Amino acid sequence: MIKVGIVGATGYTGAELLRLLAMHPEAQVTVITSRSEQGKPVSDLYPSLRGIIDLTFSLPDVDLLAQCDVVFFATPHGVAQGMVASILERGVKVIDLSADFRIRDVATWESWYGQTHGAPELIPQAVYGLPELNREAIASASLIACPGCYPTSVQLGFLPLMEASCIDLNDLIANSASGVSGAGRQASIGALHAEVSDSFKAYAASGHRHLPEIVQGLNDMAVSANGQANGQADTSVNLTFVPHLLPINRGIHSTLYANLTDLTVDVQELFEARYADEPFVDVLPAGSHPQTNSVRGSNMCRIAVHRPNGGAKVIVLVVEDNLTKGASGQGIQCMNIICGLAENAGLAAPALLP
Amino acid sequence: MIKVGIVGATGYTGAELLRLLAMHPEAQVTVITSRSEQGKPVSDLYPSLRGIIDLTFSLPDVDLLAQCDVVFFATPHGVAQGMVASILERGVKVIDLSADFRIRDVATWESWYGQTHGAPELIPQAVYGLPELNREAIASASLIACPGCYPTSVQLGFLPLMEASCIDLNDLIANSASGVSGAGRQASIGALHAEVSDSFKAYAASGHRHLPEIVQGLNDMAVSANGQANGQADTSVNLTFVPHLLPINRGIHSTLYANLTDLTVDVQELFEARYADEPFVDVLPAGSHPQTNSVRGSNMCRIAVHRPNGGAKVIVLVVEDNLTKGASGQGIQCMNIICGLAENAGLAAPALLP
Amino acid sequence: MIKVGIVGATGYTGAELLRLLAMHPEAQVTVITSRSEQGKPVSDLYPSLRGIIDLTFSLPDVDLLAQCDVVFFATPHGVAQGMVASILERGVKVIDLSADFRIRDVATWESWYGQTHGAPELIPQAVYGLPELNREAIASASLIACPGCYPTSVQLGFLPLMEASCIDLNDLIANSASGVSGAGRQASIGALHAEVSDSFKAYAASGHRHLPEIVQGLNDMAVSANGQANGQADTSVNLTFVPHLLPINRGIHSTLYANLTDLTVDVQELFEARYADEPFVDVLPAGSHPQTNSVRGSNMCRIAVHRPNGGAKVIVLVVEDNLTKGASGQGIQCMNIICGLAENAGLAAPALLP
Amino acid sequence: MIKVGIVGATGYTGAELLRLLAMHPEAQVTVITSRSEQGKPVSDLYPSLRGIIDLTFSLPDVDLLAQCDVVFFATPHGVAQGMVASILERGVKVIDLSADFRIRDVATWESWYGQTHGAPELIPQAVYGLPELNREAIASASLIACPGCYPTSVQLGFLPLMEASCIDLNDLIANSASGVSGAGRQASIGALHAEVSDSFKAYAASGHRHLPEIVQGLNDMAVSANGQANGQADTSVNLTFVPHLLPINRGIHSTLYANLTDLTVDVQELFEARYADEPFVDVLPAGSHPQTNSVRGSNMCRIAVHRPNGGAKVIVLVVEDNLTKGASGQGIQCMNIICGLAENAGLAAPALLP
Repeated sequence: MIKVGIVGATGYTGAELLRLLAMHPEAQVTVITSRSEQGKPVSDLYPSLRGIIDLTFSLPDVDLLAQCDVVFFATPHGVAQGMVASILERGVKVIDLSADFRIRDVATWESWYGQTHGAPELIPQAVYGLPELNREAIASASLIACPGCYPTSVQLGFLPLMEASCIDLNDLIANSASGVSGAGRQASIGALHAEVSDSFKAYAASGHRHLPEIVQGLNDMAVSANGQANGQADTSVNLTFVPHLLPINRGIHSTLYANLTDLTVDVQELFEARYADEPFVDVLPAGSHPQTNSVRGSNMCRIAVHRPNGGAKVIVLVVEDNLTKGASGQGIQCMNIICGLAENAGLAAPALLP
Repeated sequence: MIKVGIVGATGYTGAELLRLLAMHPEAQVTVITSRSEQGKPVSDLYPSLRGIIDLTFSLPDVDLLAQCDVVFFATPHGVAQGMVASILERGVKVIDLSADFRIRDVATWESWYGQTHGAPELIPQAVYGLPELNREAIASASLIACPGCYPTSVQLGFLPLMEASCIDLNDLIANSASGVSGAGRQASIGALHAEVSDSFKAYAASGHRHLPEIVQGLNDMAVSANGQANGQADTSVNLTFVPHLLPINRGIHSTLYANLTDLTVDVQELFEARYADEPFVDVLPAGSHPQTNSVRGSNMCRIAVHRPNGGAKVIVLVVEDNLTKGASGQGIQCMNIICGLAENAGLAAPALLP
Repeated sequence: MIKVGIVGATGYTGAELLRLLAMHPEAQVTVITSRSEQGKPVSDLYPSLRGIIDLTFSLPDVDLLAQCDVVFFATPHGVAQGMVASILERGVKVIDLSADFRIRDVATWESWYGQTHGAPELIPQAVYGLPELNREAIASASLIACPGCYPTSVQLGFLPLMEASCIDLNDLIANSASGVSGAGRQASIGALHAEVSDSFKAYAASGHRHLPEIVQGLNDMAVSANGQANGQADTSVNLTFVPHLLPINRGIHSTLYANLTDLTVDVQELFEARYADEPFVDVLPAGSHPQTNSVRGSNMCRIAVHRPNGGAKVIVLVVEDNLTKGASGQGIQCMNIICGLAENAGLAAPALLP
Repeated sequence: MIKVGIVGATGYTGAELLRLLAMHPEAQVTVITSRSEQGKPVSDLYPSLRGIIDLTFSLPDVDLLAQCDVVFFATPHGVAQGMVASILERGVKVIDLSADFRIRDVATWESWYGQTHGAPELIPQAVYGLPELNREAIASASLIACPGCYPTSVQLGFLPLMEASCIDLNDLIANSASGVSGAGRQASIGALHAEVSDSFKAYAASGHRHLPEIVQGLNDMAVSANGQANGQADTSVNLTFVPHLLPINRGIHSTLYANLTDLTVDVQELFEARYADEPFVDVLPAGSHPQTNSVRGSNMCRIAVHRPNGGAKVIVLVVEDNLTKGASGQGIQCMNIICGLAENAGLAAPALLP
């Protein structure tokens, strides 16, 4: 039984880890930490876990966490940076759900997140935790930087096209929409029911923190597809990314637009072939439109591809649960890979519909 | 591995059976039937089950269903009546989620459901599938009549008080509210998003089909508590039941009101003691207010008891998921009891929150 | 043109005053104040008012407010107490939407609100702003204490029965449910979309601040009906009040239960007769169930009465918009009465449905 | 007082006409027709109109409708075609909210709507009812073809850019999302609360009926901007249009993407200048993101323009209420223009927020 610790388990991604790990046959949560809720049983915050998870929040303590096999960080950005080194030293694997180790270029990270990075020396060893792209590297990693929720959907949607080098990299568009749990369990007027429900809006249209992460990922794919190991192509991808806020609790929907440079490609076949063996990517039949409730609470990502009138424009529709495949589920998928477990251990439950 | 058949698997309770049984370690769905969707894969109706349930709807056929160990009816009332006898004859256990066998008095059933009962001779052998009340009888039953969604919540909420004979039976009130999945997957204007969302209303305030079922159950409790085996007390319970329609998908909340006849009773202790060993009833600490999302997608029923200012009025707050503990989950709980499995097999997953 | 000032116009009741007064043919808002948002245009907080209300928040200042004919307080409780005297002195009418002057008994107020009352000497001159009960007193008042949102619905629902002295005052139940705007525009985890939506719960089942206000009102009705001017009947009403939180933005639904002491009463006729001339109370035909969206954004209160099987139990269903008839609309109705305008001036727009 | 008739007043656009016209100072609805609800008072279908609109549905009859000054068609496509000629003959103005007369090319209409057009001879005299584009033609028209809900938002969003000839017409993208009332008041499983709420999806990604309407409108703008009266440029606009279904009742949000061909354009200034005098188009300050609830129930369209990093990509965010500016409100705006009334008569009420 793998012993799991969770730092910052009071937020929604922490609660989602607890929910999923409660169903995991070979892992058990043994430590949960929270500065603000120390001493309180987790069921006080999440009554859904009453009788299922009997843990109490403790202060984050390295000695305590060192007794675990794997430690998850479900903290706001900036927290993991200060603790990860001491945990890794004790031989514990770390899976960080926050943004701290996702971006390789320190200056870029510092610019978008508005603070000095606290552990730049660890960045090179962090492996980007997108199994569909990095499965082998994840298996031998000690520090996993789990992708952001939007970046997961956008990268999985563009991946087959990028690998096939069949689209114009100079004009990619990701029009994404997320449920409100993406904003976390923070008291804020903007996330009130009375402000969010029965409404819809874009935000950060001129620039969102997930943009550099997505661009880095797409550039990697481009470089890899072009066999260019030197990274000179790094600036080649030109992505417009507009996130929107949905009046739903869970779910991300990304509508991706690209122009084919090779009109002979059968995009349906391309996607089906690429993801045939992936346990958590489901390519829908031609003509389909995935809906977010088909993945609510599940680790599945569902994708459909459209090419109106057989023209150059390809439209990719991607849905995922932002808390599951977009965060905690993906983190557990990485844990399973690291620990040599079945990749879908604890992640096989169907979505909740309706 | 127990082989399970589902008649009428196109509706929400059928889909919920499929979702829950997909997680069941010792049962497997082998037959699903639907007249209207014959030949269609279930994932066409429920994309959430793509890659998880690979079955195709077939026409309801007794020979096919006879190959199962257990057959569920997830049909509208009136359907099971016509098929159950022939299935029972083949030695197959039947668990009926519909209203066909819930009410013992045929005339009462026919009056509320507006049709002649098709199999009155089977009613005496049907066991009412509320495990907290009838566990032993369920274990040896061949035909289970699963309680309605509202009746489950109301009976579990009044049960400890009834057994303790400490309330005035002449004035009980159940003010209940249900999510819209309770109306089933039927095209109707009244269940449209534009009609239901951002709104709330009572309905059937002057009489609802679940009223006679609840009254029968409460009367049984009264008779049993009074040691009156002859049923003379049958008319003693006077219940006012007002259902309401909530703009949510899943969940029932019942607010129950009764007047204590014995002011010395510690109602908190009474409830905790009564349900201490029940796997699916959770009595919250004094002062709590359960919310429906704490049981969303789970088989748990959560209850809190209040007694304002220590007076005679006792208020019981009960939440359940109408599709799970209120229907399909309870049916599987009965199946587990009948088949001698762990009662929580396939039902242990936490609620989905948020 | 009546000049109107609004103190604390940043919250939802303040915004609702602005929305309604923008449609008022004979009143104009000239001053809005807010300590926290001073200098900011109202449209920054409420983009719905862009191009319609061009005012900027100023600091609350008596000289400024004294230039108005009427000043509304849309502030949390405790604020109006400190400012009302100086405004009344300048000959300005005050309509307080907060709880400061609703309860006549100072000790009761201080007990429920947990603070010392700042202006007990003003309480006797405050008129409770429920036009259906107090129209004449309102017309000549200088200080109006607008009823709370729940109390409006409960009192209007019981009023005809109280006046007819036909119910048992010893066991009244008000099972109410409110949309989330009732909690105001405050950042709080409990009002987040992810916590509230797709869920439902009771709260304050053992005691809510609106309880003493409702009881005072019902007692007044009882005393008046009994012709007892000395108030000796003040403790006669025994009310159980359980509020619930609805996952909707606007709307209150109260389900009221009482036992008839006179079974010969025609309750439908009683309600229709009582409210025949009321512009904002609509008694629905027998057998109806009002829904909250039928009054969304309107000042109408809709009521239906049920008496299952012609028995002693009478059920009253009441809906209102908590921000309109439950707060700001009722305040404007009072203003119209005070100023001698048509009572429905600015309040005639139909509800927004769907 | 202008006498108004409404054919097909049972649907949501019909109800919205009734709601708005109830507030109109110079128009009065005198006839409402419905084949299915003949003889029934409108308040039976729309309780929000109780006490406000006292009309009863009658059968559609030309003699009856001929007594009106203006007749609205709020019918599904295909209905107006059969009745408009006889009404126009009687000298009555017709405003058609359906799709019957929006598309000038009959073959295109017949191809997208799958039926033969019943009155192709009337198409040339129909004026497309987008006041911001066609105000003068509307003023003298007898037959108005009101724009579709999506087309209104997309055309208003692109209009200033088209007129300035500063974008690449070969690659326009409209990523739009609509509330569920856009599907009408029809019983359908796809519009059930349990299917729509807490979910999001694209639909018709490979082609939607509003596409040819939008393309026709954009082509007209292109031709006009280029001074090409011969229409040779008709095929120059290449638009990708993907609609999505939002779990809200009212509201459309369009996110538009185009590539600037002239990088020196100040897009903010361009939009502000173009719409400076428009009563129902509000250009938000730079950096803004309009939300649909800021126009809920109002005829206002709010627009923001973004140009990330000052690059070539211009993003236009547009919100409207699909039932108001996207249908009935725009129809009344056209009626006001035709009848020489103030353009905002009956349309001045602020949005309902929250």
